[in-house]
Amino acid sequence: MESTSTPPSASSVPSRISPDHPGVPELFAVLAYGEISAFYRLAEDARMARTLQGKVALASMASAEMAHFETLESALTARGFDVYEAMDPFVRALDDYHASTAPSTWLEALVKAYVGDGIAADFYREIGHSLPVEVAEIVEEVLAQTGHSEFVVQEVREAVTASSRDKDRLMLWGRRLLGEAITQAQFVLARREALTELVLSSYGDLNGVVALFDRMQEKHSERMAVLGLA
Amino acid sequence: MESTSTPPSASSVPSRISPDHPGVPELFAVLAYGEISAFYRLAEDARMARTLQGKVALASMASAEMAHFETLESALTARGFDVYEAMDPFVRALDDYHASTAPSTWLEALVKAYVGDGIAADFYREIGHSLPVEVAEIVEEVLAQTGHSEFVVQEVREAVTASSRDKDRLMLWGRRLLGEAITQAQFVLARREALTELVLSSYGDLNGVVALFDRMQEKHSERMAVLGLA
Repeated sequence: MESTSTPPSASSVPSRISPDHPGVPELFAVLAYGEISAFYRLAEDARMARTLQGKVALASMASAEMAHFETLESALTARGFDVYEAMDPFVRALDDYHASTAPSTWLEALVKAYVGDGIAADFYREIGHSLPVEVAEIVEEVLAQTGHSEFVVQEVREAVTASSRDKDRLMLWGRRLLGEAITQAQFVLARREALTELVLSSYGDLNGVVALFDRMQEKHSERMAVLGLA
Repeated sequence: MESTSTPPSASSVPSRISPDHPGVPELFAVLAYGEISAFYRLAEDARMARTLQGKVALASMASAEMAHFETLESALTARGFDVYEAMDPFVRALDDYHASTAPSTWLEALVKAYVGDGIAADFYREIGHSLPVEVAEIVEEVLAQTGHSEFVVQEVREAVTASSRDKDRLMLWGRRLLGEAITQAQFVLARREALTELVLSSYGDLNGVVALFDRMQEKHSERMAVLGLA
């Protein structure tokens, strides 16, 4: 399902942003640390898996994150940046996000794996549309669906169909994930001038950014509905 | 360095084993569960990392294991086996191996990541030389070096050059890893007739298997030397 307020596609609007914009390495760096922290969150959450299938599903999702990390590391290295130095400013916000949304049940872990990644992907994809092609391609590549989420969808749908108590809890959980993600995104933007400038360049002004958060909310609701949480 | 008692290469000896040998799916299955358990052991051990570089190195090694798992899963599926059912008989032995060799320090974790994987790879590679080509290729693919071990070698060498106490401890640790691996390998072989038959077919008789364990010991010593542990 497409949002009704989708921004113009990359092909119809010439990029306003130079590939040398200082926000570009910052964007790669925050994405890179996002992959690492997602890897460890998924590996950790998999301990709650009730079946070996569940463990494998989360391990496969985690591994896909590391493949994306390697793409971003190469992109940063090619531009003369050290990936570890570049990621450093983003460690705290992402660690805080994961600490404040540590799942306490297997179902919460599954919803977070599905919905949390989706929120992040929406945000980066929205910025992507006005990036130079060579940058947008890298962003698109590392946001690609990893194909292991059918397991998550099936497990969650079955559980919430069987228990309205689980459903109610997971609906609240989904709302909290979105709230925390937006809080941390704002925290990052408030501290990284070049990255903020890049986001603003993508949207012209602050109203554009507000519209972006609205679209993220819509997409989030669509994803929750896929999980049977609507 | 090649062992002096290397078995003849696959090309010089016609395979004595049929691709339909019932040990073949068992071999794939034990390899497959080995990848999953290695994934989770590496992800868990990475918590002891003192730097983000260390965490990334272990996460990358872990992810390579999951790529190998997927290869084995496909191979089993193509032969009409369910990967989860097939892995079931091997869960306990591999879990026991990891439980009995849980590292208590970061250096122990690194040595285990390097040496433990090497022991397993030696064992499977030794069997591989008499497997039918299509089976040997899959075994070779999933044992391929993942290219993230330079980090491990460097960290361990630095540490043991600086501290003879660390060196002594890690030498004992390496010996224990080999001992536990052989114990669990024997446990598996004692219970899986088809797999044992496949190993015996590779070596003609029990003397061949004894020679195999000798070569594994040699290779282990070579790997320990690479880490500065000789």
